Amino acid sequence: MLQIFNKPPREQWTQLSTRPQVDTQSMEALVAQVFQQVKKKGDKALTKYTELFDGVKIEQFAFELASKETLEAKLEDAFIDAIATAAENINAFHKAQKRAEVRIETTPGISCWQRQTPIERVGLYIPAGSAPLFSTILMLAIPAKLAGCKELVLCSPPDKNGSIAIEIQYAARICGIDKIYTLGGVQAIAALTYGTDQVPRVDKIFGPGNQYVTAAKQFALRAGVSIDLPAGPSELLVYLDDINYAAFVAADLLSQAEHGPDSQVVLLAPSSDIIEAVNALLEKQIQQLPRKGIALKALNNGCGVVLSDLQECLAFINDYAPEHLIIISDLEDVMVEGITNAGSVFLGPYTPESLGDYASGTNHTLPTSGHAKRYGGVDLSSFQKPITYQKANRKGLDKLGPSVVTLARAEALEGHAQAVLVRLKQIKL
Amino acid sequence: MLQIFNKPPREQWTQLSTRPQVDTQSMEALVAQVFQQVKKKGDKALTKYTELFDGVKIEQFAFELASKETLEAKLEDAFIDAIATAAENINAFHKAQKRAEVRIETTPGISCWQRQTPIERVGLYIPAGSAPLFSTILMLAIPAKLAGCKELVLCSPPDKNGSIAIEIQYAARICGIDKIYTLGGVQAIAALTYGTDQVPRVDKIFGPGNQYVTAAKQFALRAGVSIDLPAGPSELLVYLDDINYAAFVAADLLSQAEHGPDSQVVLLAPSSDIIEAVNALLEKQIQQLPRKGIALKALNNGCGVVLSDLQECLAFINDYAPEHLIIISDLEDVMVEGITNAGSVFLGPYTPESLGDYASGTNHTLPTSGHAKRYGGVDLSSFQKPITYQKANRKGLDKLGPSVVTLARAEALEGHAQAVLVRLKQIKL
Repeated sequence: MLQIFNKPPREQWTQLSTRPQVDTQSMEALVAQVFQQVKKKGDKALTKYTELFDGVKIEQFAFELASKETLEAKLEDAFIDAIATAAENINAFHKAQKRAEVRIETTPGISCWQRQTPIERVGLYIPAGSAPLFSTILMLAIPAKLAGCKELVLCSPPDKNGSIAIEIQYAARICGIDKIYTLGGVQAIAALTYGTDQVPRVDKIFGPGNQYVTAAKQFALRAGVSIDLPAGPSELLVYLDDINYAAFVAADLLSQAEHGPDSQVVLLAPSSDIIEAVNALLEKQIQQLPRKGIALKALNNGCGVVLSDLQECLAFINDYAPEHLIIISDLEDVMVEGITNAGSVFLGPYTPESLGDYASGTNHTLPTSGHAKRYGGVDLSSFQKPITYQKANRKGLDKLGPSVVTLARAEALEGHAQAVLVRLKQIKL
Repeated sequence: MLQIFNKPPREQWTQLSTRPQVDTQSMEALVAQVFQQVKKKGDKALTKYTELFDGVKIEQFAFELASKETLEAKLEDAFIDAIATAAENINAFHKAQKRAEVRIETTPGISCWQRQTPIERVGLYIPAGSAPLFSTILMLAIPAKLAGCKELVLCSPPDKNGSIAIEIQYAARICGIDKIYTLGGVQAIAALTYGTDQVPRVDKIFGPGNQYVTAAKQFALRAGVSIDLPAGPSELLVYLDDINYAAFVAADLLSQAEHGPDSQVVLLAPSSDIIEAVNALLEKQIQQLPRKGIALKALNNGCGVVLSDLQECLAFINDYAPEHLIIISDLEDVMVEGITNAGSVFLGPYTPESLGDYASGTNHTLPTSGHAKRYGGVDLSSFQKPITYQKANRKGLDKLGPSVVTLARAEALEGHAQAVLVRLKQIKL
């Protein structure tokens, strides 16, 4: 269970905040080889590596999805309704992020504006798991469609028959996607980076994956494609100051811990009683989980931190910069104002992280490993890039031009000054 | 002068769009060494490399800026006025980019919101050039301050006396900065990445630089710090269909060409007459430039492309994805709607690129090398990261919870389902 650190001094915080490092270097040789082969031999290399890593021989990677009706006939009504609800909420929250054009006249006669523009071609990677991870499709494809991306290239590893799970197919279908490339791991990321005869190359790659996929996305980044976020094991930090909610928090910590043995769980509380109470409930609740072996490993690496001062707690949270942060406290409002580094924040006793993982509408693709200090989670803008525009008329140039000439000359860039002067000479106001 | 390509077939576009590759690999060993030494030995390593690369021995890197008044006494009034105008416009345009909190109730009883939050500590790197490049300070420090960043760590290489140019000092001062770290090149980026006793570590590094700085920023990225943009030589693509403005365009191309021999200049026109006219004017105008040797090399690597069909022109521009795009055409409005990939767009005959480089208000830190397909230029949001929040009440959880349970179980994550169920059991509506 969680190891308790009672009022750790600041010097110890760094140690408490240290996440496992993904050593991508050990995988570099393999990743480099796959990338080189895919670049050189295209689809033939994809067939080779799919046979090697996924154990199935595939020559046509575009897997055409069955119709919505055909898929629905194979799915339970409860699932169909639940995924529709989730999709609706995700759509609503990301649609609300749409930004109007920003336009101002900075100088009379000089208009400047900025417009959010879709990234044309995006690659969405959905890993295989012990179960079909369809929820990530909603989290990526819905904002991509809202942003106006023209081409969504979805890759997901094939099963042993070269097929794709019904749930994955259905999630893609309701997002308006009609085919999935049956490609997994490093070869999928390589295909999205370089393109092949069958698989379109993309401008940006999104999606989670194992350490090989993480290493491959770093490789793609160096090859000039951009990526959503640097990846790391999932994390939850809970702040709890009311022992009455210990059972809720134990369940939340377990929901995080079941992801994998390297999941990060931290419980922060103003007294050790609370952490001990949660620990006792963890012992009990873990018994009912099918993935209890995994969860136990994660919990044993987790920690309970006691800090009695609220400002200290806020400092600890911001220093840790958790991917997910649950706050159950009457001081919630004060805390929200003090939180500067976190991926997604869940407030109050009735807001388990699971809500945001699936269906409340917020995105579940979030910064881990302390990257919440510098990156936000995936949102509508992740699928867009801003373009700025400007237009001067004669009057505007006449007014601002002389300042530009002065500044350009102070930087010894006479050509920049001349580009203004050649025009000013011809201006008759 | 510009080599003319008359109606090049699509197969040739890739070649015409190819930018010089910055081979950072050859610099890796040096960069790795400097990073390692700075990480290990801190300020002592900084002193060593500053002596080695900048030829000056410095032990205290924080250079305290003189007061605004003292600096103004050493500067010309025209410069003071011009930089004030530029700062005011840059401030106005970036302030207009501020975003209100996005907040919606996605399900009755479930509120989701998103708030832009400042990145706390940002590093701003200002390179040394043949002249002090003060304009980039305005482009980085003004949005950083507007975003609410707490700490702006500005590094710029010292001159032979260990000092900083008056213009750089003044630009920093009017942006509310009171010290500059006299650090250049790789050692500056390493100091910002790891921090030393004297130099604070930062969360994100901004700013241009030579190939070593570019390589060092890639290294910083791999060490977990984020960066503004991958860098490359500056670029200008001009679309001109009215020969009357050939002289303006020649001056614009020269303003781009004078940056460096690897600057990219492309002129796109519907007829070769226009390109020939511009070429003739380039011959003439280049004579008056102090940096004509540099400009000539860039022009000789540049190209003039003739494409008669407007849709073809748009396709070429979007395929090239220029950092700067000037459009001088009566069809400007149609073209603006068709442009999907560009950093910053300058419209009409009276909008030279110089305006945006210095003073119109738009940012001049822009994506090069075709990265406009996936990145926008630096803007207010570059200094922020979004945090999402959510809060459910009993009623909201009661309504949405069952869907979450269904979806979590379909992904075989029973712990996620239990985090909802443990609460639903206790809810008495």
